[in-house]
Amino acid sequence: MTAAFSDLDGFRSILSAQPGQDADAVSAATARNGQLTKPPAALGRLEDLAIWYAGWRGVDRPEIKQPQVIVFAGNHGVAAQGVSAFPPEVTEQMVLNFEHGGAAINQLAATFGARLDVHALSLDQPTADFTQGPAMSAAELTEALLVGWNAVDESADVLVTGEMGIGNTTPAAALATALFGGDAEDWTGRGTGVDDAGLVNKTRVVAEGVALHGAQGDGLETLRRLGGRELAGMAGAIARARTLRIPVLLDGFICCAAAACLEKTTGGALDHCVAGHLSAEGAHVRMLQALDKKPLLSLGLRLGEASGGALSLGVLKAAVACLSGMATFAEAGVSDS
Amino acid sequence: MTAAFSDLDGFRSILSAQPGQDADAVSAATARNGQLTKPPAALGRLEDLAIWYAGWRGVDRPEIKQPQVIVFAGNHGVAAQGVSAFPPEVTEQMVLNFEHGGAAINQLAATFGARLDVHALSLDQPTADFTQGPAMSAAELTEALLVGWNAVDESADVLVTGEMGIGNTTPAAALATALFGGDAEDWTGRGTGVDDAGLVNKTRVVAEGVALHGAQGDGLETLRRLGGRELAGMAGAIARARTLRIPVLLDGFICCAAAACLEKTTGGALDHCVAGHLSAEGAHVRMLQALDKKPLLSLGLRLGEASGGALSLGVLKAAVACLSGMATFAEAGVSDS
Repeated sequence: MTAAFSDLDGFRSILSAQPGQDADAVSAATARNGQLTKPPAALGRLEDLAIWYAGWRGVDRPEIKQPQVIVFAGNHGVAAQGVSAFPPEVTEQMVLNFEHGGAAINQLAATFGARLDVHALSLDQPTADFTQGPAMSAAELTEALLVGWNAVDESADVLVTGEMGIGNTTPAAALATALFGGDAEDWTGRGTGVDDAGLVNKTRVVAEGVALHGAQGDGLETLRRLGGRELAGMAGAIARARTLRIPVLLDGFICCAAAACLEKTTGGALDHCVAGHLSAEGAHVRMLQALDKKPLLSLGLRLGEASGGALSLGVLKAAVACLSGMATFAEAGVSDS
Repeated sequence: MTAAFSDLDGFRSILSAQPGQDADAVSAATARNGQLTKPPAALGRLEDLAIWYAGWRGVDRPEIKQPQVIVFAGNHGVAAQGVSAFPPEVTEQMVLNFEHGGAAINQLAATFGARLDVHALSLDQPTADFTQGPAMSAAELTEALLVGWNAVDESADVLVTGEMGIGNTTPAAALATALFGGDAEDWTGRGTGVDDAGLVNKTRVVAEGVALHGAQGDGLETLRRLGGRELAGMAGAIARARTLRIPVLLDGFICCAAAACLEKTTGGALDHCVAGHLSAEGAHVRMLQALDKKPLLSLGLRLGEASGGALSLGVLKAAVACLSGMATFAEAGVSDS
């Protein structure tokens, strides 16, 4: 198989030429929605969501039969600076837990009938400590993007991407600070649960990374300098989903930081994405505002591993089922006023 | 079959002697939750929800296999006063739509694997106009409560109740005003979509009803005077679920108004209920505050027919699947700090 791209400029070219929604499908779905047996707008956000989904799928009565959830795992040089409440070996231990079906995402994917794939990216080779130099070389970033690109099932009809990587709220906070501005304090939170001293240390690490690498290129270059392999995997998968017209449900803070690198490379690169949930990780609310995304759910999750995005699959499936399955006033013989 | 109760005092006796949670199951589920492969509290509200569910089911690793959704339909004397944007015959037309599978609730129940039952309560006999006298006699209310009571499947493991009844946000607003105080304006909204003049008229009807019937007895007496058959059906089903230790996901404004009649008859009568969603019907937020219930979802739905409660089935199923299906740190060989 010929790789879709062989370097970062090739990936940039793809991003700049991505397809948009099918305007005819949006019109047809909107018209159909207006005839369904319910008062106008009575299904609230479900209606907008279903029409949006129809537009990306290019049909007025879409179906969701093959959701895919992909979890990417990576390790981080900055973890050695004590930025997490858990040791780095937990990344690999959790990958095994995913493979054995014991993690939260296994239960969530099963609940909503989704296929779950797990990709561990060179766990024995953590990225470089970004306070010392770029986290990844161009070749390493390209390779990780390709893992994500190739991980997407072409027959999937909705995608959720997530991650596992001890320490990875630190690169996510660094990316957010570099991409959106503000101070490290604004974007750095407790992740899996660092204490007050840990938060001070983590914020220092983020600030040092941003001082060294901020404002040195586009979103993709920022991802290379401050990101990580599992974040790049998510970015590659989200971009691939767009070429395949597969809508994406975004997970929490780390997933959105990866997605933001696409948006900051090419504006509109996340038009095929909806925010699945608002995470309890403090800065996620700010990030969603910066991305102009309104979350479907807000239930205090802060787990990562695609959990919040997967939970929102139920909402999307319900929305699409209503649009495509309900009878119209005429079909049901119901008076429409 | 002997009826569980033959009059309203019999129903009151049942309400006053309902079972509580199983404290041992709550303890065991809480302990189990603390050992699962995730940072503490990382699943947010899902954790509290699953433990609450386990407590009502009396087991530490519960399963949800047989959700039941019941929609009760009724007609209202006050509809003749022009309180709805739709004519009364739509109630029966929508019952046929439910039976033929064309309504939103059909799609939602199917999405979440729920059984759907529909009970039309004497649609050809609207309740009396409550601005003229009590909506129902004691015998009529008892009969409607029994329909709800008997509608619950003893083998169900979660219940969602909902309603269809043109004009029924008017009795719901009247119940809320009588039960919780305040003015008719505070509790009266646009329902399926009345215009400004319609809202003024509807508020007048609510105020007249409350002036005639307010503060004349407990929640059940208020239900008789200002409620309706489908509201009584929901109340009967919610009470029956408690005797069977079946947790309930409440739907929107009308469902909660019916439920509030139980709470105002016997404090704590809704401890086995969670608010499935926050409706866009304006006063629902106030009602949930009065009932001390925090909604799981807030997606702008205002349809009724159990739709918001059914949508939240996905959240509850996911929560329970995580509690019961995840591996512990010890089982998975994952370091817990």
